[in-house]
Amino acid sequence: MNKTIKHQLKHRSIREFKDQEISKEDLNIFKEVIQRTATSTGVQSYSVIRVVDKENRKKIAEVCKQSYVEIAPELFIFIVDCYRNNEIVKEKTRKSYEQAYDMEKFFQGFTDAALASQNLMNAIESKDMGGVFLGSILNDSKEIINILKLPEYTFPVLGVAFGYPNQDPMLKPRMDMDLRFFEDEYKIFDNYLDEIKDYDEEMKTYYDLRQKDKPLDSFSEQLIQRFENTLEKRTLILNVIKEQGFDFKLK
Amino acid sequence: MNKTIKHQLKHRSIREFKDQEISKEDLNIFKEVIQRTATSTGVQSYSVIRVVDKENRKKIAEVCKQSYVEIAPELFIFIVDCYRNNEIVKEKTRKSYEQAYDMEKFFQGFTDAALASQNLMNAIESKDMGGVFLGSILNDSKEIINILKLPEYTFPVLGVAFGYPNQDPMLKPRMDMDLRFFEDEYKIFDNYLDEIKDYDEEMKTYYDLRQKDKPLDSFSEQLIQRFENTLEKRTLILNVIKEQGFDFKLK
Repeated sequence: MNKTIKHQLKHRSIREFKDQEISKEDLNIFKEVIQRTATSTGVQSYSVIRVVDKENRKKIAEVCKQSYVEIAPELFIFIVDCYRNNEIVKEKTRKSYEQAYDMEKFFQGFTDAALASQNLMNAIESKDMGGVFLGSILNDSKEIINILKLPEYTFPVLGVAFGYPNQDPMLKPRMDMDLRFFEDEYKIFDNYLDEIKDYDEEMKTYYDLRQKDKPLDSFSEQLIQRFENTLEKRTLILNVIKEQGFDFKLK
Repeated sequence: MNKTIKHQLKHRSIREFKDQEISKEDLNIFKEVIQRTATSTGVQSYSVIRVVDKENRKKIAEVCKQSYVEIAPELFIFIVDCYRNNEIVKEKTRKSYEQAYDMEKFFQGFTDAALASQNLMNAIESKDMGGVFLGSILNDSKEIINILKLPEYTFPVLGVAFGYPNQDPMLKPRMDMDLRFFEDEYKIFDNYLDEIKDYDEEMKTYYDLRQKDKPLDSFSEQLIQRFENTLEKRTLILNVIKEQGFDFKLK
């Protein structure tokens, strides 16, 4: 097993960091890693915003409801960016294309942004740094758009906060891959609770460093809580995507 | 620079493979890498389908319009999977939740699936194999759903075809990161064609192995062609997502 895979198999979210800056050299390497990430049909329709300003950090931490977002050494926000390519085409052709902002392009940029963020995470971890993905920026996508002054045809995907780890969390238990990895077609199981019984129990032995004194609930209990406590603003995500100018082409 | 990053900086899409199988041991490691990938709030709402069956391969290659999809040693399709968690909650609570299938959960699974696919790609490349992402499965998402017998609350995200490389493509030129990496807020440029002038020219020196005898068009020309030749089925992606049972909650 090589070092890349060793790092991958011990991935944990790191939320507490040493008071140590990331060097400019490392930041430049990370930018290059993002740049070299695969991109659908080569169009590179995503961008990255590094958030340094303290006020911006504070506001984003409030959206995420996570105080470490404010103080982590680095915070990169990955966004769908169809604005840039649209401007290029407009400048060159002096006309507008109906297909410019449809959801096909949105999903292309969304996927690319996510790929780049994982590629960054692998680079971070290869250098014995650590980080955490912040899907929580979508708790209020509209507010993130305002904070980062995102123009039309752009949309936030996820954030990555990172630095040198100042904690050593447990590996979080995962569901058995027999339930998640299939051959040739999707496999439906008769009784999922039966299938996840061991995992459900195992989860109760996992201590999340954010609540150090008690282990987590079983996986199924956690799911129920999540179903019962969905943030309304998160569920309205498509409305914000539409406001950003994307054309749904719903039949 | 460590080996992980060296591999990342030389990433190229590999589309032609040696006639050499991936060992069971390596496949198991790749499954583990997928399993250990970060997942939003721990819910693991994505799955992977390994496509082995020749008929399935052929049909998927037709959707992708890429013959190598049929014959690549391995083909993994990553999907949003909200079906499994929904079943777990239904079995446990004997009731249905309105929030079960909203787009918040769709995007959570979509992002996780993309992260896992990039993590797989890094593992592949760390072992001197190579691969290519297949966003082209979304040329006809409905057909992919049929081929893989995907149930409600699932949706294809992207594919990864991989194996041992039998080609050594050029590094593809990329846009300057000054245009794609900003600090604190989105930066709008006055004239994009000016900004990408060098890159536009550089692209004409790039030979894609799929059309060996002539270099690519400039980036801006490629964009125009893409805007003019969008596949209609791709643009209708939201319709298929809705048919899969996701609730858009559009105001």
